[in-house]
Amino acid sequence: MGTNTGLIAVDWGTTNRRAWALAADGAVEDRIADGLGILSVPDFPAAIAALRARWGDRPMLLAGMVGSNRGWIEAPYVPCPAGIAELANGLMRAEGAAIVPGVCDIEDVMRGEEVQLIGAVAAGLMPRDGAACLPGTHAKWARIEDGAIAGFRTVMTGEIFALLKQHSILSAQLQAPVRVGDAFIEGVQRGLDEGELLADLFTIRARALLGGIDDPASHASGLLIGSDVAIGLGVADDGPVALIGDPALTALYAAALEEAERDSVQIDGETAFLAGIHAIASAL
Amino acid sequence: MGTNTGLIAVDWGTTNRRAWALAADGAVEDRIADGLGILSVPDFPAAIAALRARWGDRPMLLAGMVGSNRGWIEAPYVPCPAGIAELANGLMRAEGAAIVPGVCDIEDVMRGEEVQLIGAVAAGLMPRDGAACLPGTHAKWARIEDGAIAGFRTVMTGEIFALLKQHSILSAQLQAPVRVGDAFIEGVQRGLDEGELLADLFTIRARALLGGIDDPASHASGLLIGSDVAIGLGVADDGPVALIGDPALTALYAAALEEAERDSVQIDGETAFLAGIHAIASAL
Repeated sequence: MGTNTGLIAVDWGTTNRRAWALAADGAVEDRIADGLGILSVPDFPAAIAALRARWGDRPMLLAGMVGSNRGWIEAPYVPCPAGIAELANGLMRAEGAAIVPGVCDIEDVMRGEEVQLIGAVAAGLMPRDGAACLPGTHAKWARIEDGAIAGFRTVMTGEIFALLKQHSILSAQLQAPVRVGDAFIEGVQRGLDEGELLADLFTIRARALLGGIDDPASHASGLLIGSDVAIGLGVADDGPVALIGDPALTALYAAALEEAERDSVQIDGETAFLAGIHAIASAL
Repeated sequence: MGTNTGLIAVDWGTTNRRAWALAADGAVEDRIADGLGILSVPDFPAAIAALRARWGDRPMLLAGMVGSNRGWIEAPYVPCPAGIAELANGLMRAEGAAIVPGVCDIEDVMRGEEVQLIGAVAAGLMPRDGAACLPGTHAKWARIEDGAIAGFRTVMTGEIFALLKQHSILSAQLQAPVRVGDAFIEGVQRGLDEGELLADLFTIRARALLGGIDDPASHASGLLIGSDVAIGLGVADDGPVALIGDPALTALYAAALEEAERDSVQIDGETAFLAGIHAIASAL
C-alpha cells in the first residue's frame, strides 16, 4: 500500500466515528468526529466513498468495531503475540478500504486498542518491552514484548461505573464529576487491598444514610479503578505502565498507580492510534 | 403489646408489600401480597386502616423500608449487637402500628432483614451463635452471637446481576434462567478464588466471540455468587451458614457454599420473618 500519497485513518466504533486525513509523513491534514458509529451506518461503501470524496484517492485503513460481527466486514481476530506484521498480514480487504483485525488472547478480545498499543511502541512513546493500560468502558491491560501484544486482559471498569451511575441505588450519589482527592484515593486503596468491590460499593449507600460521605462519585470511581489496577498489574507486571487514552481518564489511573507504587507515563490516545495506523500502512 | 389477640405483620418494601394476620400462637390466618410498596402509598394511615378493617383490631408491626427516610415514619437504626430486646426497644410508635427499626454496623445498614435473622434464631432454625446469609438484591451476611446480630456486611450481588442482565454488553447472554450445573460451578470457583470479578465477567463476552460459552447466564451468576461468598465468609466465619430467603435463591448459595467447603441450612424467608415479628411482639 505504501504511504507516499498519504492515508485516511478511521477509528470506527459502535456509536462514534473519528477519521483523519494523514500526510505521507503521518502529519494530520484534516479530521472529523461524528456520531456515525457502525450501528448508524446504512451503507458502508457510500460512507467510504464520502470520505474519499472529501480527502481524495489515498489508501484507507479502518479499525475498531467496523471489523466486528456487527460491523461491515468481519476481520477475524489475530492471536497473541500480535505486532505490526501480524496486524498487517491480517488486514481484511474491503471495497475501497482495508480493515485492521482485532486481537485475541485465550479468553479475551480487543478491537481498536491493538492499533493504539502498537502505535505507542512505533512512536517511541513506550518501550518495546513493557506494560500498558487503555482505560475506558472495557479497560485493556497489556504486556508488550518485542513490540508485539504478548497478552492482555479486559476489565469492565467503565461500563460498571456507567451502570451504577445510570441505573443503580447509588445513582443519585454518583452524578458529580470525578476528581483525584481524598475520597478518590481512599477508594483506590480499598480497591487495591481488598478485592471486595461488591461489598465496598454498598458502603457508599450506607455511609450516606449514617451521616454522610464526602464526594461519593470520586470514592466509587476510586474503588473501581483501584480494583481494576489490582487486576491489571497481574498482566502488566513489570516496569512503568504506559497509560494510553483520554487525558482526563489516564490522569485518574496515574493517581491510582501511584498508590500502587507503580510508575506510569500518560500517552494521548489519538496520537497512539494515528502512529499505529501509519505503522501498519508502512508495513504493507 | 402482647399477642393474646393475635397480630398483624407487614413486610413493607420499596415496591412490594406482604401482610399477614397471625393468631395468638403465631399461626398464619390470612395473607396478602401486593404491589403497594412504600413508593406507591399515597396515605399510610388509610393503608393501615384498610388492613385493620380486614383483620380486626390487633397489634400491628411493620418492618422494612416503611421505616426508612423514604417511608412513612423513620425508625432510626439500632447499632449492633442487636437482638430481640434491642429491636423491641427501638420500635417507633405510629398511628395504629409500630415500626421495627433497621440495624446498622460501622459502615453498613439493613432494614427488614433483621426481623428474619432474629426470627430464624427465635424459631430454633439456626443456633444462637452462628453465621447467616440472606441472598437478594443486596445480600446480607451476618454473624449471630447470643441470639443477636453482632455484625454484618452487605454485598450488591443481586443488583449487579440485574444491571448486567438489563443494561450491559452481556445482556443478551444473560436472559436464560440460572441453574446449578457445570457453568455455574465453574463461575463459583473463579469467584471464590480470584477476586477479579470485573475482568472475569468480560470473559463471558470474549468466549462468546471466540467460539461459544455454554450457559453464560448461569456462569455469570456463579461468578457473582462465588465473589459474594468469598466476601461473606469473612463475616460468617464459623459453622454452618443459615441461608434465609427464597428457596430458588438459597439453593444457588448452598451450591456455592458447598464449593467453598462450608455447610449450610436453607430456611424459608417468610417463616423466619413471621417468627421474628412474633418474637418482637412477645417481648413487649
